[in-house]
Amino acid sequence: MKDWAFTTTVEEMEAATNALLETANKVGADTWQKRVKDQTPHCGFGEAGTCCRICSMGPCRITPKSPRGICGCDVHGIVARNYLIFTAGGAATHSDHGREIMHTLHQTREGGNYQVKDPEKLIRIAKEWGVETEGKDIYDLAHEIAEIGLLEYGKPFGTQRFCERAPEYTQKLWEAADITPRAIDREVSQSMHMTHMGCSSLAEALIRQALRAGLSDGWGGSMMGTEFSDVMFGTPRPIDTEANIGVMEKDNVNIVVHGHDPSLSEMVVYFANDPEMIAYAKEMGAKGITVSGVCCTSNEVTMRHGIPMAGNYLNQENVVLTGACEAIVVDVQCIFPALGPLSKCFHTKFITTSPIARIPDSEFIQFSAETADVSAKAIVKMAIENFKNRNPELVHIPSQKQKARVGYSVEAIKGVLDTVANSQLDEFGTTKPLIECVHSGVIRGAVAMVGCNNPKVRPDTAHINLMKKMLENDIIVITTGCSAQAAAKAGLMDPVQAREYCGAGLKRVCELANIPPVLHMGSCVDISRMMILASDIAKDWGINISQVPVVGCAPEWMSEKAVSIGNYVVATGIETFLGVDPYSKGSDEVTRLLQGEDGIKEWVEAKFVVDTDIESLGDKMIACIEAKREALGI
Amino acid sequence: MKDWAFTTTVEEMEAATNALLETANKVGADTWQKRVKDQTPHCGFGEAGTCCRICSMGPCRITPKSPRGICGCDVHGIVARNYLIFTAGGAATHSDHGREIMHTLHQTREGGNYQVKDPEKLIRIAKEWGVETEGKDIYDLAHEIAEIGLLEYGKPFGTQRFCERAPEYTQKLWEAADITPRAIDREVSQSMHMTHMGCSSLAEALIRQALRAGLSDGWGGSMMGTEFSDVMFGTPRPIDTEANIGVMEKDNVNIVVHGHDPSLSEMVVYFANDPEMIAYAKEMGAKGITVSGVCCTSNEVTMRHGIPMAGNYLNQENVVLTGACEAIVVDVQCIFPALGPLSKCFHTKFITTSPIARIPDSEFIQFSAETADVSAKAIVKMAIENFKNRNPELVHIPSQKQKARVGYSVEAIKGVLDTVANSQLDEFGTTKPLIECVHSGVIRGAVAMVGCNNPKVRPDTAHINLMKKMLENDIIVITTGCSAQAAAKAGLMDPVQAREYCGAGLKRVCELANIPPVLHMGSCVDISRMMILASDIAKDWGINISQVPVVGCAPEWMSEKAVSIGNYVVATGIETFLGVDPYSKGSDEVTRLLQGEDGIKEWVEAKFVVDTDIESLGDKMIACIEAKREALGI
Repeated sequence: MKDWAFTTTVEEMEAATNALLETANKVGADTWQKRVKDQTPHCGFGEAGTCCRICSMGPCRITPKSPRGICGCDVHGIVARNYLIFTAGGAATHSDHGREIMHTLHQTREGGNYQVKDPEKLIRIAKEWGVETEGKDIYDLAHEIAEIGLLEYGKPFGTQRFCERAPEYTQKLWEAADITPRAIDREVSQSMHMTHMGCSSLAEALIRQALRAGLSDGWGGSMMGTEFSDVMFGTPRPIDTEANIGVMEKDNVNIVVHGHDPSLSEMVVYFANDPEMIAYAKEMGAKGITVSGVCCTSNEVTMRHGIPMAGNYLNQENVVLTGACEAIVVDVQCIFPALGPLSKCFHTKFITTSPIARIPDSEFIQFSAETADVSAKAIVKMAIENFKNRNPELVHIPSQKQKARVGYSVEAIKGVLDTVANSQLDEFGTTKPLIECVHSGVIRGAVAMVGCNNPKVRPDTAHINLMKKMLENDIIVITTGCSAQAAAKAGLMDPVQAREYCGAGLKRVCELANIPPVLHMGSCVDISRMMILASDIAKDWGINISQVPVVGCAPEWMSEKAVSIGNYVVATGIETFLGVDPYSKGSDEVTRLLQGEDGIKEWVEAKFVVDTDIESLGDKMIACIEAKREALGI
Repeated sequence: MKDWAFTTTVEEMEAATNALLETANKVGADTWQKRVKDQTPHCGFGEAGTCCRICSMGPCRITPKSPRGICGCDVHGIVARNYLIFTAGGAATHSDHGREIMHTLHQTREGGNYQVKDPEKLIRIAKEWGVETEGKDIYDLAHEIAEIGLLEYGKPFGTQRFCERAPEYTQKLWEAADITPRAIDREVSQSMHMTHMGCSSLAEALIRQALRAGLSDGWGGSMMGTEFSDVMFGTPRPIDTEANIGVMEKDNVNIVVHGHDPSLSEMVVYFANDPEMIAYAKEMGAKGITVSGVCCTSNEVTMRHGIPMAGNYLNQENVVLTGACEAIVVDVQCIFPALGPLSKCFHTKFITTSPIARIPDSEFIQFSAETADVSAKAIVKMAIENFKNRNPELVHIPSQKQKARVGYSVEAIKGVLDTVANSQLDEFGTTKPLIECVHSGVIRGAVAMVGCNNPKVRPDTAHINLMKKMLENDIIVITTGCSAQAAAKAGLMDPVQAREYCGAGLKRVCELANIPPVLHMGSCVDISRMMILASDIAKDWGINISQVPVVGCAPEWMSEKAVSIGNYVVATGIETFLGVDPYSKGSDEVTRLLQGEDGIKEWVEAKFVVDTDIESLGDKMIACIEAKREALGI
């Protein structure tokens, strides 16, 4: 491996964390590092997926001596049901995020808290959906589209509108496999019905529904979440920012936003930039206000405003442990309940805002579109007034930070590609220049790196090592979520330096296009952007998605959402590589269905590859890309 | 306790089962009795609800030494999340059944497979929903109502229509507690979102959502399931039938219907009565065709056609073990996967029909409204042709059976009450005659006995013993589901004899009204009938539901549906008594919320009482009823 001197290594990040853990010790705070020790070893039945508690006759556990549950369900049925429930949890969660966005869109108004910032995109989608746009007030249109979008969750008939964005070939595969998603919530409810006691125990049927529920997320709820966030908050364009814990500023009021839904964080960012608030911060003894982010809320505001990223999932305790966090403001998903007791060890205000995510030992300020401005201002003010309560002895912000260029929506990527297109010969607004690079072999292919951190993998190592490996091998990386933040923290999104470490081909492309080799495409719901990109490439290239030399990878995933994502990425025809087993290893039949050549691969032309040896996982990804190239004869 | 000589005792039923288990031994078949032994003891973490596997960092288990999961969630959050997921599973399942009924209603047509058999009821509901009915073709109206009903699953705004049937006071309690259910599927999805990693861990918020999800079932999906089943298949009226395994007939082709959705069984019953089919059965050596039922499908067809009930949940293997079951035809829910391998030990055809309930080792004949006639006829024919494949050496049908009068829909109960109303003084079509009986103390109150069997309770014992105890104490019993079948099997629905064993007051009422003291109100979704009855009583009486001397009881429950039911019954204001703990004992906070005086009781004026000592549970029920009487000053 090359010398990556300028990057921040995992060892360096761990050293910084260790310094913060000393503070934790000092104040007697509990941290995930300790809790992992307490919870290890994990229950073997749970890890294998072979425990069932969907009825109160049990719980039942499958062993060689007790091969069936009390109802007679075998291990394959139990593992597959658990897998489907896990998927349904993820699909419901992502999609409910999208629903909130649609309800917010329904509340937009001229001069209101929420406005239409990308009317062009709204009109584009309206036309796509067959809605008359001519002569219509943009807010009337927004509300009409919001209502149509909301019905995608519950319409009694028909399938998801956005599925029509997929190549016809893909749509036909879905139809043949009977996995084209109907109303989003219906797929969640049906999943919960199928897994009810005495319903489905045929693994194949359960896995099929997992794909359908996943598709209702990726091509339904998540895609609406992404698209209409863009409509309201602006479609991301490349923008420079910084990442890692050092973005917090010792002399400023530090507000950390955390969670997933941008509705809240957009308003917090707005008021943190309000001169009145900045003046108030100065009055209270600070030099200013720094908003930084954790998890996908961070990705949302960094993509649109260049708000720096303090860290990813397993760093959420670190921001409090700096002793310099005046408020950690959260919306939904992936928020450690640990932040409650932890914040009590410091002056930090832990502010919850969503009825979906009620957490003990937090201050609850219910957020709604109507009163968003009032709430956000109150939160910023509360943080400012909390500055004076710092215990200076506990303040320590590690200095690590890296430059990062972010904001690569599909529109932005096409914008970049337009700059390298030959204006004499090429169409604009397509992925063709990228296809040419891949076709010629200058770039070998692409990897979509996504997903969380998980203590089962040394945090960030898999993300960073795999990305480095891909870059060296001239494979471009697109990334979202905590994976994106791992890259940014390490320096792999540095717009200039990172390209130094790529293979010659990819390096040249990065120079020409003036991009980092790892492209930040947004938050977890924005994996829908990747689906659109893959579809557009397949269409522009005239091949099927499964033929494109691209793979997906979630080496450190941990959440139900990640499994939902995995299902829709695979169902879209993209081979997906996991570094953590989805509680499915207890059934060879489920393993065959998910990972074999004669399971889901026969339906959707892609499968999962699970390998906890990350080096080996990377080798398999490269081999998969090269095999696709070979099959294409390129 | 009195002498109940005419009833069939649990001991007698067990003796009959034991004879069948000998056959099981002979053929080497596995049965639940054996599997219970293999699965005992159960996992203590699972039973207490203190194990969490909603993300792949775990699974985590709470112990004194590891009081929090890796994310920091404490035991209360974990138990409450598990409780909410359990509820959501049940709400989704019941409601999806209702959705199927609505889709079938949408397919009704003059002379078609499915027709409107109770147009009056359809018109009544249409008026209730504000739909114009004048001059409309009944099928146009049915389709319009079906579409409106289907939107109750997914409408973006507003709350469940049927909630307006509840007393205003109850509706206000729901509003104040923020638990009025919105679109049904939305409540399921939101539940799955709230329980996602890093969302809600505040037990109170999770329990609140459990009530809301439950209400979306009871006053949404289940109520639609019930009401529109009545519209299509007829509103039940009192009808005489028989119950217990002896209803299967040795010389006939035996078809057993099992599951929950009446759409299939209605058609099977129709074709089993077809002279052409009967003639074919005779040609094949049988004397005729007997359709009998297990579980709620059985309740559906017994309520409308007097089809005999072969047994309840834990008898489903017994019908196959008779060696005389030509086909067991199932739709959805509570179907043992064990029926797959078990049926292979006999000549029995195990026929699955729903994409929701795919089970290994079954023959799958996909059922749909369009082709219902063809499928049902094929199934009946298949059973007939299977008659010759019996192994006579294995045939043994225990002789037990009892008479039962069933069919007590709310409409039927009011019909009965009209017969005892004073035509000079009373309004007709109200519950007032019943209220008078309760007010005067002739009847002390009522118990709604519902729910499944569970090997954790000696099967049927709790149902039967508690009912006997209630009757002796002049408490009338209304019942649904497997509880109703336990009563019928024991003889407690015998229209004449059962009343001999009641207290003097109840006995007189039964004689006057010519009813059994235990009223069969239908299947599990028909617990919605009980909610309507309770509401009507409260309105007719001019008091709140929580003041009415009525309690709910599920002494042997086992399914997620049962917990959903429990939530909506309690949320409706009816104290609910459980004989099995809902995996919640691991958290004193959740236990307090569900069972204490300052938890849900403060929101909805009712709570759960959990007591695994069934005798003690019965005493508490009587005490609760008497306390309500005392509070009313009666």
